[in-house]
Amino acid sequence: MKKLTRRSFLGNSTFLSFAGMLGALPLMGSMHKKPKGDFVHHVYFWLNNPDSEEDKAKLIEGLNTLKAIKEIRLARIGVPASTNRDVIERGYAVSWLLFFDNLEQQEVYQKHPIHLKFVENYSHLWSKVIVYDSVDM
Amino acid sequence: MKKLTRRSFLGNSTFLSFAGMLGALPLMGSMHKKPKGDFVHHVYFWLNNPDSEEDKAKLIEGLNTLKAIKEIRLARIGVPASTNRDVIERGYAVSWLLFFDNLEQQEVYQKHPIHLKFVENYSHLWSKVIVYDSVDM
Repeated sequence: MKKLTRRSFLGNSTFLSFAGMLGALPLMGSMHKKPKGDFVHHVYFWLNNPDSEEDKAKLIEGLNTLKAIKEIRLARIGVPASTNRDVIERGYAVSWLLFFDNLEQQEVYQKHPIHLKFVENYSHLWSKVIVYDSVDM
Repeated sequence: MKKLTRRSFLGNSTFLSFAGMLGALPLMGSMHKKPKGDFVHHVYFWLNNPDSEEDKAKLIEGLNTLKAIKEIRLARIGVPASTNRDVIERGYAVSWLLFFDNLEQQEVYQKHPIHLKFVENYSHLWSKVIVYDSVDM
């Protein structure tokens, strides 16, 4: 009985390793495959002091603390690229892009103590925020 | 001498396998690691006929043709989520999110025949486009 339990445990872990490899394969090959996370939360921040590199660095420091929230599937911090066409919005200071598995996980993030602390500690830095929440088609 | 060469070759390939595993590990575990593609190109489309499901489906059909462009590292098509707060922009019809390795690859995409054909065939559908191009910090 003990042996069976052990074997079934080993069987499971082999299966999990294999499943893990299967899951990793698309990411190792073509990146056209979307990563996990059907919910895209993209936030753009405008600073109170748009020319302050210090304030921008502070905001980025704050965003980095949010990465500890385990519901986040992917997190990227960006700044406007050098591209410049009429349709391109370039006024924001920082882009904060997150993927979540679903709406519910995003709501956990919104109410997470680390997120609430971030708003408390860093919201004095920004003058405007635009959020685009989208779900995959 | 020959042996030494062979050994150093094996050493190299072992090193590469190990490096490959190291590179793959974060993807198999936490997705906090960013995928390839330092350039984020996020486009939001507003439709001429915002209530036309047919026009929205047509635009999405067009966006799907763009996925054939090999410079794209990641492509996601989305629609506004059900979230609704003051800071959330919900007026757009379709979100088109792309990752590229760099600015140059994004420029190849912009001038790609498939992209030009997409603009020619589908631009009558939209009334407004906002683009956010950002690069990783």
